[in-house]
Amino acid sequence: MKNFEFYNPVRILFGKGTISKITGHLPSGVPILFVYGGGSIKSNGVYDQVIAALGESEYYEFPGVQPNPTYEQLIPALDIIREKKIGFILAVGGGSVIDGSKFLAAAACYKGDDPWDILSKNIPVKEALPIGTVLTLPATGTEMNGNSVISRVSLNHKLAFGSSLVMPRFSVLDPEVTYSLPKNQIANGVIDAFIHVLEQYLTYPSKAEVQDRFAESLLMILKSTGLKVFSDEIPTYDDRANFMWAATNALNTSLSMGVISDWSTHTIGHELTALYGFDHAVSLAIVLPGVMTFLSTKREEKFFRYGEKIWGIAGFDHQAAIAETIRFQDQFFRCMGVKTKLSEYGIGAEAIGKVVAQLKSHGAQMLGGAGDVTVDDVPAILAARI
Amino acid sequence: MKNFEFYNPVRILFGKGTISKITGHLPSGVPILFVYGGGSIKSNGVYDQVIAALGESEYYEFPGVQPNPTYEQLIPALDIIREKKIGFILAVGGGSVIDGSKFLAAAACYKGDDPWDILSKNIPVKEALPIGTVLTLPATGTEMNGNSVISRVSLNHKLAFGSSLVMPRFSVLDPEVTYSLPKNQIANGVIDAFIHVLEQYLTYPSKAEVQDRFAESLLMILKSTGLKVFSDEIPTYDDRANFMWAATNALNTSLSMGVISDWSTHTIGHELTALYGFDHAVSLAIVLPGVMTFLSTKREEKFFRYGEKIWGIAGFDHQAAIAETIRFQDQFFRCMGVKTKLSEYGIGAEAIGKVVAQLKSHGAQMLGGAGDVTVDDVPAILAARI
Repeated sequence: MKNFEFYNPVRILFGKGTISKITGHLPSGVPILFVYGGGSIKSNGVYDQVIAALGESEYYEFPGVQPNPTYEQLIPALDIIREKKIGFILAVGGGSVIDGSKFLAAAACYKGDDPWDILSKNIPVKEALPIGTVLTLPATGTEMNGNSVISRVSLNHKLAFGSSLVMPRFSVLDPEVTYSLPKNQIANGVIDAFIHVLEQYLTYPSKAEVQDRFAESLLMILKSTGLKVFSDEIPTYDDRANFMWAATNALNTSLSMGVISDWSTHTIGHELTALYGFDHAVSLAIVLPGVMTFLSTKREEKFFRYGEKIWGIAGFDHQAAIAETIRFQDQFFRCMGVKTKLSEYGIGAEAIGKVVAQLKSHGAQMLGGAGDVTVDDVPAILAARI
Repeated sequence: MKNFEFYNPVRILFGKGTISKITGHLPSGVPILFVYGGGSIKSNGVYDQVIAALGESEYYEFPGVQPNPTYEQLIPALDIIREKKIGFILAVGGGSVIDGSKFLAAAACYKGDDPWDILSKNIPVKEALPIGTVLTLPATGTEMNGNSVISRVSLNHKLAFGSSLVMPRFSVLDPEVTYSLPKNQIANGVIDAFIHVLEQYLTYPSKAEVQDRFAESLLMILKSTGLKVFSDEIPTYDDRANFMWAATNALNTSLSMGVISDWSTHTIGHELTALYGFDHAVSLAIVLPGVMTFLSTKREEKFFRYGEKIWGIAGFDHQAAIAETIRFQDQFFRCMGVKTKLSEYGIGAEAIGKVVAQLKSHGAQMLGGAGDVTVDDVPAILAARI
């Protein structure tokens, strides 16, 4: 096990009716920016619950944050923050609303000319407005970490930044808010969280048994959630609660402690989203089988363990077992209604050169943290996904 | 799954050579009280590493904290804290040193007459000195929670208190410090952590799959550590690291979120320790089989799952499988050199009345949080352990 530092002070308020609890965790006497997305919170009752919890607080709304939140769309909120002397951001929505709010929290305190520098030049965040969240879509895990991914449309760039200063002070996880989610959003959330676990687990043996067994625990729960979506079984409250808590644990940094993480699937997937507008989870489901096939001999030990523990695939021929594992996993994604080949979205081999060019334009050479995928490997990885 | 609130801001500095990292986490310009135990840290090099890390800080030593730390022994430290204007407590040792330091942290800021009231009258902690820890014995999990257990010898009382205000600001977990531990201390640590997990897991089905699977993950790791102690296999660095991180995760509150916890084995075990001076883990190993046998029909579903997942015991007759599970578990403790019957320690049936009297003197009626063990059940539970 490698040395590590673990620090996660996010307070989780989990369960039925917990939106009302935010009242006790909001700062008093400080104007609040209430950030949300496309309006689904108005039809499912979350908006009303939040307004009730805000009570007498002075607050201003910033609605309309889109999936894959963009720099262009978020920047106007900085004027509100300045004018209204906002001291706290309340993000109510899925990963996009929360990631966008984290960017605003850091950008509001940025002393340089353009807060995009935080992402493009890796300028460390030195100060940020405090934020709290109400999660409406279990998927990204951003509600319990300090990471954020933002797109800049004008540059076709999708970049990430991270800082403990933008970790939420609290996050409300009420599984009942998921009742109104369409099935494809549940499926995307399952895939997103599943691949978050894999990026931290599916590398090289790190002899970190707590982390590996926790990862396998979450994969089994997410597999079970996914298969329920496929079978049209109606998920119970507890199914939803387990899915929600599993997705949060998938990326609250506990799995990555002391192990070799990867994230090359995400790095390539982000470029597909930037170029073609794929949903984040879909981009990952497309790229992952290519990365796994490409690395099947290098990472044989861990890939085989994954197949055995999660998909029940064993056998003397480890490479054959791994190929079978990749097929099972692909079928799992497809069962949930997600197509996993570029050609199924009308995209051909021309995508390969574009993705490589995008990666190179960001100076990417080594992709991911495991040291075994470079930008030069991307053509081989994507050729198998056309 | 029940509603829950999770909050754990303890910073973990994990790995080889991490004692040196505390320098960056100590408050500057504040006198520090350096609390430790019987002096083993002087022979294994930990003391020297801590002194080096303290550097130019103003610090005062308070050595000699005993296992099962006592009110009587700790109280004199309050004079040092007052006289030297201590602003930070650095606890270096096992659970006893850390629990003792938590008590001092709360007692130093207590406004009433006698800080024992915090335990005996459940007076909530409103203020506490900040503390940091260097863990030398993986076992209790106190390094990553806000709980503390203190004995008052003059009253034969052993009581607990808890507050997020006494959660350590940081805890150093360097698995290398365990190389000098005698085998019986490793065994006690394994048993202690193992039973911590069971107290949170082995109750009623809570449909909390993340928590249950995480609990099973930790039990498997602790079982593996224990069997290595038994087989005289020399644990590797990674074995030690996995044991250490598993023991911390066993009681960092993540397992108890949203589930029905018990702690009746601890409640009874504490009285045995107060009366007869048992090591904490030994008292638990004595009591647990009695509690399990007593509850085997009430908690059949979870006990059967435990036997199947951890000990590989299945079968149509669930009660027979549970009886076999209790035998396996008992053998596991005995394999590590821990006797599990009171008679093996020269104690007879007279202990039963004494334990019941002690429990009643603390006003205990319902034992544990699952609502199925009362003080009136203790004779039946302990009769099987003579």
